[in-house]
Amino acid sequence: MSEPVEQLRNHLATLSDLHNAAALLQWDQQTMMPPRGRGARAETAATLRRIAHERFTASETGALIDAARAALDGAPPDSDEARLVAVARRRWEKARRVPVELAAELARAASIGHEVWVQARAESNFALFEPYLRHNVELACQYVACFDGYDCHYDVLLDDYEPGMRTAEVARLFGQLKEELVPLIATLREHADRVDDAPLHGRFPVESQRRLVERTLALMGFDPMGWRLDEAVHPFATSVGRDDVRITTRWDESYFPAALFGAMHECGHGLYEEGIAAELQRTPLGQTESLGLHESQSRLWENMVGRGRSFSSALAPLVRECLGVGLDAERLYRAVNKVRPSFIRVEADEATYGLHIILRFELEQELIDGALAISDLPAAWNERFRASFGLEVPDDAHGVLQDVHWSAGLIGYFPTYALGNLIAGELWERAHADVADLEERIAAGQLAPLREWLRENVHRHGSKFTAVELLERVVGRPIEVGPFLSYLKAKLADVYRLEL
Amino acid sequence: MSEPVEQLRNHLATLSDLHNAAALLQWDQQTMMPPRGRGARAETAATLRRIAHERFTASETGALIDAARAALDGAPPDSDEARLVAVARRRWEKARRVPVELAAELARAASIGHEVWVQARAESNFALFEPYLRHNVELACQYVACFDGYDCHYDVLLDDYEPGMRTAEVARLFGQLKEELVPLIATLREHADRVDDAPLHGRFPVESQRRLVERTLALMGFDPMGWRLDEAVHPFATSVGRDDVRITTRWDESYFPAALFGAMHECGHGLYEEGIAAELQRTPLGQTESLGLHESQSRLWENMVGRGRSFSSALAPLVRECLGVGLDAERLYRAVNKVRPSFIRVEADEATYGLHIILRFELEQELIDGALAISDLPAAWNERFRASFGLEVPDDAHGVLQDVHWSAGLIGYFPTYALGNLIAGELWERAHADVADLEERIAAGQLAPLREWLRENVHRHGSKFTAVELLERVVGRPIEVGPFLSYLKAKLADVYRLEL
Repeated sequence: MSEPVEQLRNHLATLSDLHNAAALLQWDQQTMMPPRGRGARAETAATLRRIAHERFTASETGALIDAARAALDGAPPDSDEARLVAVARRRWEKARRVPVELAAELARAASIGHEVWVQARAESNFALFEPYLRHNVELACQYVACFDGYDCHYDVLLDDYEPGMRTAEVARLFGQLKEELVPLIATLREHADRVDDAPLHGRFPVESQRRLVERTLALMGFDPMGWRLDEAVHPFATSVGRDDVRITTRWDESYFPAALFGAMHECGHGLYEEGIAAELQRTPLGQTESLGLHESQSRLWENMVGRGRSFSSALAPLVRECLGVGLDAERLYRAVNKVRPSFIRVEADEATYGLHIILRFELEQELIDGALAISDLPAAWNERFRASFGLEVPDDAHGVLQDVHWSAGLIGYFPTYALGNLIAGELWERAHADVADLEERIAAGQLAPLREWLRENVHRHGSKFTAVELLERVVGRPIEVGPFLSYLKAKLADVYRLEL
Repeated sequence: MSEPVEQLRNHLATLSDLHNAAALLQWDQQTMMPPRGRGARAETAATLRRIAHERFTASETGALIDAARAALDGAPPDSDEARLVAVARRRWEKARRVPVELAAELARAASIGHEVWVQARAESNFALFEPYLRHNVELACQYVACFDGYDCHYDVLLDDYEPGMRTAEVARLFGQLKEELVPLIATLREHADRVDDAPLHGRFPVESQRRLVERTLALMGFDPMGWRLDEAVHPFATSVGRDDVRITTRWDESYFPAALFGAMHECGHGLYEEGIAAELQRTPLGQTESLGLHESQSRLWENMVGRGRSFSSALAPLVRECLGVGLDAERLYRAVNKVRPSFIRVEADEATYGLHIILRFELEQELIDGALAISDLPAAWNERFRASFGLEVPDDAHGVLQDVHWSAGLIGYFPTYALGNLIAGELWERAHADVADLEERIAAGQLAPLREWLRENVHRHGSKFTAVELLERVVGRPIEVGPFLSYLKAKLADVYRLEL
């Protein structure tokens, strides 16, 4: 690595450290912090963000980037050096447009908003949350106004979570998805009695569920020497360095799949964080950037593995042993794949999940464009939910207040969840072509071959490539709905014993 | 507050936030972090410390301090403004003498050293720890070399933990202490059979002990809305803002007083953190500075309250209810005050405790002066321990490896523990003069009057005053051994039914 690139790298290592400190503050806030700590936490989070922003946007950074670019001198465009400089440059050019005080206020408002949301959701009280949401939307609009060169306002926000992705492209993919999902769900609804998921409901003590989750995660690669599992109101995964991965889940004593598949989901995220190449640590490439890619990992592990026919053979004995539920692999497999429109996104089945995302994608665009007033949001939510799902939202806790994202100012984030499903579909198809006897190995509880394939093809690159660039490398085409829909229809035809 | 003082205050608020973030990193490392996280944690801690050091020592800070000083304009010397400027100036003049890279290396070495020490202590393997300790001592010597104007090397280190205190003054106090303690302990040893502490030993499940500790801490003012209690190898207290106080304890299933009085000790520290005036938050005065004062709070609650005759009346029913141990107040009181020379400082009784500290105070001075080689330290420890305590140290885990401090580069810290006892003796005497029916209230489990007296006279001031200045205000004299020794002898005469 040339001297100027090394200097840039050293300069940016500080930013990675601040990123780790911020990750810990956030993890702690959602798992450990006593409630009264929120005031000081908001200040602390804002200060770290402000310092990181100041350091990153300093003209010194620009000079180091320019010097490093000039010194690349024929390094291959896909080399770590060239990508490091390119990614740093892209982020720097975005970040320097945001005033320091706006960046700090975004962090402060996110921290306070999160705490208020926890209470508002518990009380199903949108009025309590409304002023904080309004403030977050206003801040997002101020943020959008810092940029030009995008096709629409929402593009600016989307680009932070899915670099290079445009709203129009997402709308195209989501349109195709919706067109297939709506009739599919209607068909399955007519045949609801073909799948019995009653045995998944009952009384499952947290300690028994924890054993089941720990044994399942161990198969995936969860290692207590470098990982933690905790409880959180809104489960998430984060890392404080690649050797300190922290995942969370939420225990439901009356329905064990919630914690089990939730934990597999977060472990999928964690494996991505852990799998980033050691040599990218403390560089901008060592932090993941495409949330669609990130989500592809969690949903691949949660649904394609966890709720797959093969893994059910490994899972059923664990469920019997830990919970005393005597389901054979076939019945377990069919039960955990029952499709049933419901209110809560994070509890949604694979088929209806996309519709939850599309609802949020549409509402967010209208909020940002000013076409929908914050005060009208609950009514709009409920009305569209009725239209998409045929269900009447009983209260805001089961509707507009269910998700943490808006409380933390994360607007433009939701689409990446459904993009994650589509990317997972592409990777899943390709992994079957590349890994010998993949399904047989999964059925035997051997998850290492899949994990290593993902590590080699996806994880190790960190944020060297955008989602589209990575897919071009691995499967030879950009994001499409085809593989995901083929996978989903084949599975549901199998589960429901229907032609779909 | 004048404009320049306000500007200084705003500038320094960032430092308080970084201090909070660093406190969380450290708490997490000792309670939650998976072991492999230590590498990244060391980098992150070092970076926060470096940034804080750079910001604080920047010439901008000096200019702001100068402007604020000029603008004080007759503010009383004990006002928040005047003290803020004076304390900031004192710290700035010290901090700017330390090169940024040395400050960062001190943090990095402390983080790595701590992790190695945990393993070395578990294995009783001094050789494993030795190179890290050597590095920490070398760094401490480099640190000392940054300063002049002190009477001896050790003064520099001591001043960081006990501002304004000199080694010679500590040596004078410790000399008086030792002179009284040695014959006292010898006398009590002859009468060991007068006190029966057998009922304190047995089998006490952690969950039962936790209930006892939680009920006891609730009497002191521990409130889960703003506090946490966790487990740590080496118990400590910290705060991430005054409304986010975190204490730890260590459970010993065979001896319940360890966790109980350990938790009261840390809660005493926590009450100090929580009690600092709200208006001093996010200023340099909002972080405590005199560790002797801090320790006076923990030891006052642990020993003068917790192991006092009066509180035993409140404690005995809780011990019976939670642990099923049927000791009456009198027997509990006498049992928990048995004096018995032993190896571990944190488990030492009140009478022998001071000798543990004096041992470390002497060894530290010799390490820093180069009079004692690191490789000779275990032998020196064991030899002096034999001389002071009449006991043969069985292994290094029970000797030189027992304490966390040196692993984290905290050299010069130990004397503050014994100074804390002396300060507690002064405050305890004064509280009895000021608070009506103090002992009767404590016997009834009413600890609020004492807590409020401490809050008013000690806690709220934060670091406005040095320990000596504060004592001058509250009791009208500096630190002396008299009150502590009078208290201790009266108690042990009572416990042992002896003339002392």
